[in-house]
Amino acid sequence: MNDFCRKHELSIPVVLAPMGGGPSTPELAAAVSNAGGLGSLAAAYSNPEQIEQDIAKLRALTKRPFAVNLFSPAAQLPLNSGVSSVVDFLRPYHERLGLKAPELPQKPIENFNEQLDAVCKAAPPIVSFTFGLLPTEAIQRLKAQSTYLIGTATTVEEAVQVEKAGVDAVVAQGSEAGAHRGTFAVPAEEALVGTVALVPQVVDAVRIPVLASGGIMDGRGLVAALALGASAVQMGTAFLACKEAGTSAAYRNALATAREDQTTLTRAFSGRMARGLRNEFIERWNASALTHLPYPWQNALTQPMRRAASAAKQPELLSLWAGQGVRLMRELSAEQLMSKLKDEIKQAWADLKNQLP
Amino acid sequence: MNDFCRKHELSIPVVLAPMGGGPSTPELAAAVSNAGGLGSLAAAYSNPEQIEQDIAKLRALTKRPFAVNLFSPAAQLPLNSGVSSVVDFLRPYHERLGLKAPELPQKPIENFNEQLDAVCKAAPPIVSFTFGLLPTEAIQRLKAQSTYLIGTATTVEEAVQVEKAGVDAVVAQGSEAGAHRGTFAVPAEEALVGTVALVPQVVDAVRIPVLASGGIMDGRGLVAALALGASAVQMGTAFLACKEAGTSAAYRNALATAREDQTTLTRAFSGRMARGLRNEFIERWNASALTHLPYPWQNALTQPMRRAASAAKQPELLSLWAGQGVRLMRELSAEQLMSKLKDEIKQAWADLKNQLP
Repeated sequence: MNDFCRKHELSIPVVLAPMGGGPSTPELAAAVSNAGGLGSLAAAYSNPEQIEQDIAKLRALTKRPFAVNLFSPAAQLPLNSGVSSVVDFLRPYHERLGLKAPELPQKPIENFNEQLDAVCKAAPPIVSFTFGLLPTEAIQRLKAQSTYLIGTATTVEEAVQVEKAGVDAVVAQGSEAGAHRGTFAVPAEEALVGTVALVPQVVDAVRIPVLASGGIMDGRGLVAALALGASAVQMGTAFLACKEAGTSAAYRNALATAREDQTTLTRAFSGRMARGLRNEFIERWNASALTHLPYPWQNALTQPMRRAASAAKQPELLSLWAGQGVRLMRELSAEQLMSKLKDEIKQAWADLKNQLP
Repeated sequence: MNDFCRKHELSIPVVLAPMGGGPSTPELAAAVSNAGGLGSLAAAYSNPEQIEQDIAKLRALTKRPFAVNLFSPAAQLPLNSGVSSVVDFLRPYHERLGLKAPELPQKPIENFNEQLDAVCKAAPPIVSFTFGLLPTEAIQRLKAQSTYLIGTATTVEEAVQVEKAGVDAVVAQGSEAGAHRGTFAVPAEEALVGTVALVPQVVDAVRIPVLASGGIMDGRGLVAALALGASAVQMGTAFLACKEAGTSAAYRNALATAREDQTTLTRAFSGRMARGLRNEFIERWNASALTHLPYPWQNALTQPMRRAASAAKQPELLSLWAGQGVRLMRELSAEQLMSKLKDEIKQAWADLKNQLP
């Protein structure tokens, strides 16, 4: 077993990807941790009270290590002048869903420093983050209370920056990954490197443990990632259909029949590049040729539509985040899935022995 | 050892990717075959005489199995009306290189049936192909003389079509792969699935052996691909710097310092989507917002510029095809590289044992 798994007492080299906006729940994180993986709580869209409550709930459900995930505040960009065009674009969808006219919220995202205060107070064993580096003071503060830090990189250069910032491990996010790209050092279009290429190049460039993410769904992928030099795998899409996940019914239905060639990269929902299933909203947004608002403004502005679409079971107006391994998703409880992954690792290992020359 | 490797007597599960337009030589194919892999000859841009000569040369250099690669004639599209704009775009580059004004050739690509005649006459043990299925008669003719056939797929659906056509094995080409995409059943933009996601989904959908391709450069990648269920790996970029390759000096220089985030997908050079290093020609083409000619017309029209740029050592006007694993390329002879890959497989296997929980 490798250092990362030993340190965090993982009997299965699986880290649950933090999946904000619904799928991530304390129940899901606890189930993964209890089954021998590392559960993660998505805290980036939560206010301090929610963070406190979620961590307390998670602690009541597991005695094992877990991670809390935050977004780098460096990803928050100032508003540009395109608001009225985007509001106009959204108007008919609001009408269709019976919502009042779209309006830009004053506060598009929770305050990072307040979130950090709540996280530091709750003192989870691990804090992971994406969308860039955390501020130096935040890193110092977390490290001063012995928090293990996991950053996110989509290129070798980003992984080197994460390591230089004093972070303990790095997720190498391949282009297959569902939901938001973690890219922060180059344009997102230039950082779409597949997992099989990204992981070994990152492993060669840093000394800290590397966690593979993107397109990995089963024991075959887990063994492959370890062979590439990863210490563990961060998996999100694989857990979307678990009963413990907060995935909405409309989202679950869309995922159940999705194919590997149905995902696309889009900024339509949030202003940041993310991978999800193509649907009406993405296609109409692309056809409009409008310029998105910068993150987090586009995200905040489209949120009422997405919430209402979810309640109304209208997947065509939802952000259906999914990775390219989506065909391999299983409808199991997290506990069952973890147990299956463990068996599959053994099977893949046995099959590999027969494959080798 | 698996059936594919046993059948073709491979002691290293490596298939040399056929790399037309320069890098592919009989010497490179022979070196890979002689070292226990499967060498491939790129024949798609060769006339019947060249095919005959290349196969004869290859046979003189190795007694072991090898493959000859053709393009599906279904990929040849009729000319559209945009010729004069593309000619105007190319004019200044022709002037810069001291070439006469660009002119559309009457015959943009060799005749497939004549190529097939030459291949059938030479009767190589294996024929591989990409850009679509071969015509039914071609498949029947090759199979009648016991040729082993390897097709190419970039989605699950394409792999199923390849199998249904009676083909013996399929290359699953991940989005990381350098040079042309093999996509034929969906728009190329929708078929950019990373290797780690594509391979197991294809393996689950077909019974024929699956060869992984895209982003795999060393023993870690080879073991990973086998863990995903592949029977072998097709590698191109890894061999570009070998002395036996026909890679030009300017191309070699550009590759030597290339990073994983410097490749891009473009139709600028050939009209078909392909992955290569970003350079002046691609950027100016993108900025022009011109519509490319359909393949193979754009390919034929830009060829004189690329040949002259290669001779003049001007990488900014060359198609610098490369996959996303490019940082991991080694400057070794093919024999040395194959020997290293063999050692690395053993090392990756040993490391993996220690990694597993």
